[in-house]
Amino acid sequence: LVLITGGLGPTDDDLTRQGFAKFFGTELLLQNELLRKIEDFFAKRNLQMPAKNKIQAYIPAGAKALVNNLGTAPGIMAEISGRLFAAMPGVPSEMKQMFEEAVLPELLQLLDGRAVVVKKLRCFGTGESNIAEMLGSLMNRGRNPLINCTASYSVITLHIIATAEDRDKAQRMAERDEKILTELLGELVYGTGRQTLAEVVGEKLAQQNKTIAVAESCTGGTLAKLLTDIPGASGYFTHGWITYSNAAKTSELGVPADLIENYGAVSEQTAAAMARCARKKAGTAFAIGITGIAGPSGGSEQKPVGLVYISVDSANGCETRHFIFSHVRIQAKRRDRDSIRLHAAQTALNMLRLKLQI
Amino acid sequence: LVLITGGLGPTDDDLTRQGFAKFFGTELLLQNELLRKIEDFFAKRNLQMPAKNKIQAYIPAGAKALVNNLGTAPGIMAEISGRLFAAMPGVPSEMKQMFEEAVLPELLQLLDGRAVVVKKLRCFGTGESNIAEMLGSLMNRGRNPLINCTASYSVITLHIIATAEDRDKAQRMAERDEKILTELLGELVYGTGRQTLAEVVGEKLAQQNKTIAVAESCTGGTLAKLLTDIPGASGYFTHGWITYSNAAKTSELGVPADLIENYGAVSEQTAAAMARCARKKAGTAFAIGITGIAGPSGGSEQKPVGLVYISVDSANGCETRHFIFSHVRIQAKRRDRDSIRLHAAQTALNMLRLKLQI
Repeated sequence: LVLITGGLGPTDDDLTRQGFAKFFGTELLLQNELLRKIEDFFAKRNLQMPAKNKIQAYIPAGAKALVNNLGTAPGIMAEISGRLFAAMPGVPSEMKQMFEEAVLPELLQLLDGRAVVVKKLRCFGTGESNIAEMLGSLMNRGRNPLINCTASYSVITLHIIATAEDRDKAQRMAERDEKILTELLGELVYGTGRQTLAEVVGEKLAQQNKTIAVAESCTGGTLAKLLTDIPGASGYFTHGWITYSNAAKTSELGVPADLIENYGAVSEQTAAAMARCARKKAGTAFAIGITGIAGPSGGSEQKPVGLVYISVDSANGCETRHFIFSHVRIQAKRRDRDSIRLHAAQTALNMLRLKLQI
Repeated sequence: LVLITGGLGPTDDDLTRQGFAKFFGTELLLQNELLRKIEDFFAKRNLQMPAKNKIQAYIPAGAKALVNNLGTAPGIMAEISGRLFAAMPGVPSEMKQMFEEAVLPELLQLLDGRAVVVKKLRCFGTGESNIAEMLGSLMNRGRNPLINCTASYSVITLHIIATAEDRDKAQRMAERDEKILTELLGELVYGTGRQTLAEVVGEKLAQQNKTIAVAESCTGGTLAKLLTDIPGASGYFTHGWITYSNAAKTSELGVPADLIENYGAVSEQTAAAMARCARKKAGTAFAIGITGIAGPSGGSEQKPVGLVYISVDSANGCETRHFIFSHVRIQAKRRDRDSIRLHAAQTALNMLRLKLQI
């Protein structure tokens, strides 16, 4: 089995179809039906098809074209000496959809009737190694279901892969493990499948008919962006302020200038005032205030780069916590900054999630 | 040459080092120096090293460990029957740094004294196929420098790859092509190397000692996030408003409620009022207003999903343009939304860039 991605574009440096034909020992043939599809793609968008795109309608003789509903590059699939070769576009969204719709069904046929069910648990609040220690022998190789673990920006995803004679049995095995892991990990588990923290928080806000506003300093819109990434966010997200300068904190939110002067813009007091002022101005059930030092400059001995105060205000009062996102620092200035900002925004969502669970 | 990424983590599903040893026909040996480095990594962060991490100090006998300055997973490199094998971590930042510092120097030795110089030009404002047509035979395979083209969210990157007997000559060849392409593509070229639009706009604002504020609706913080991703953004970015509800547009920015009622929240008039009000309130040289329909719902015949109004206000007046980001729609609701939001924010940065060039 060989899976190939990329190189199916219209430009001269896209050479996968030529390489495929050469390896397959055959010629590229124009498929008129594909050409019409590509022409349609442009026509629907009121664009003229550049002449370059015609090359994408050529497929190695004897191979099968895979439909691309999202772009102009068809995929290519062929079996050579009992081995399956599939070339998919490099654009991640196109590749994923083609894999799921055209390639995966072929792969499942290779399973000889056995069924595989995969479930995912999404966790936030501790590291990959700690989760692995909590799971212990559950993660042993050779165990069925097999439990794998991937980490991306502190979101840990556990993959439960159950294999059995039939789908029902695999499904039951995966569900049993899902329950065991969920109990073992407690509130570290925030969701399943591909859910993001913002999605889970958004669902809870919508269910509880609650609204939210945010006042951000160091995260500069990251938290608002994560919240509004979710379709339907306008149902619960109303206001966001990015008060990057101290003057803006005072003029837009009403944070007292002397409070900022006494405690500093990066302080528990300022974070709490940002959250309280935002909630009052927006008239929302919840408001989050974030202030910190994303770096690379601006840090000091007392207030290092990575120090972030996060405050969540609600009718039940204001909770402010501070974090030093130094374990995420990777010594590359630009990436540290990105990482600190994203971790701060995600941690704020997680604080809100834990409040919404009650 | 075989380059491998991923599977070097501490958990039981990380099997690259075992696979490497098996293929290499050798055993894994504990390297005490590596173990000390991993212990140090945790100690510096005031964390206790989970026992699981010890496995990362094992390297196949006869292979070389590659230093990882950003994380706990060392890389592995070995030559087998005259072929070079290198395993790097899967975390992109760790992989990139290890590739550049430890793997690339080995690859350059394979060039037999020839030198390769790569230059990149970054473009915004048209599609990959159109750029390819503008370049014509410059993109022919076999040409030296070789010109390649990649696209990511409408940023088109041209790679100029010059090969020559020595570095000076390759450098001159790449520079000559850089000049030719820059003249040919005109204002489509916004930068070089890895520059982002936000970086280029930020540099110009800083050089010209100008400030900026943003008022976002459908982009919900995306534009502010892009601007504040850049270290030092506090020098020119002061205020951001995310006025997601109509009420917020009126209460926070002062957009007249009857203007929104007459023309709609998604209109040229509202976008222009958002930009003007934001500039007045923030007292900045520039302000950007964005309002549109990111979808998946909320579209109509007159105002379809993907319609976005972008307004840039300055002392020279207010320029408002509308776009229908339908060519970016990829029929997957969540991804369409992401894509429309990101394109709208990038297009706003590009409008600002063109104003700052004058």
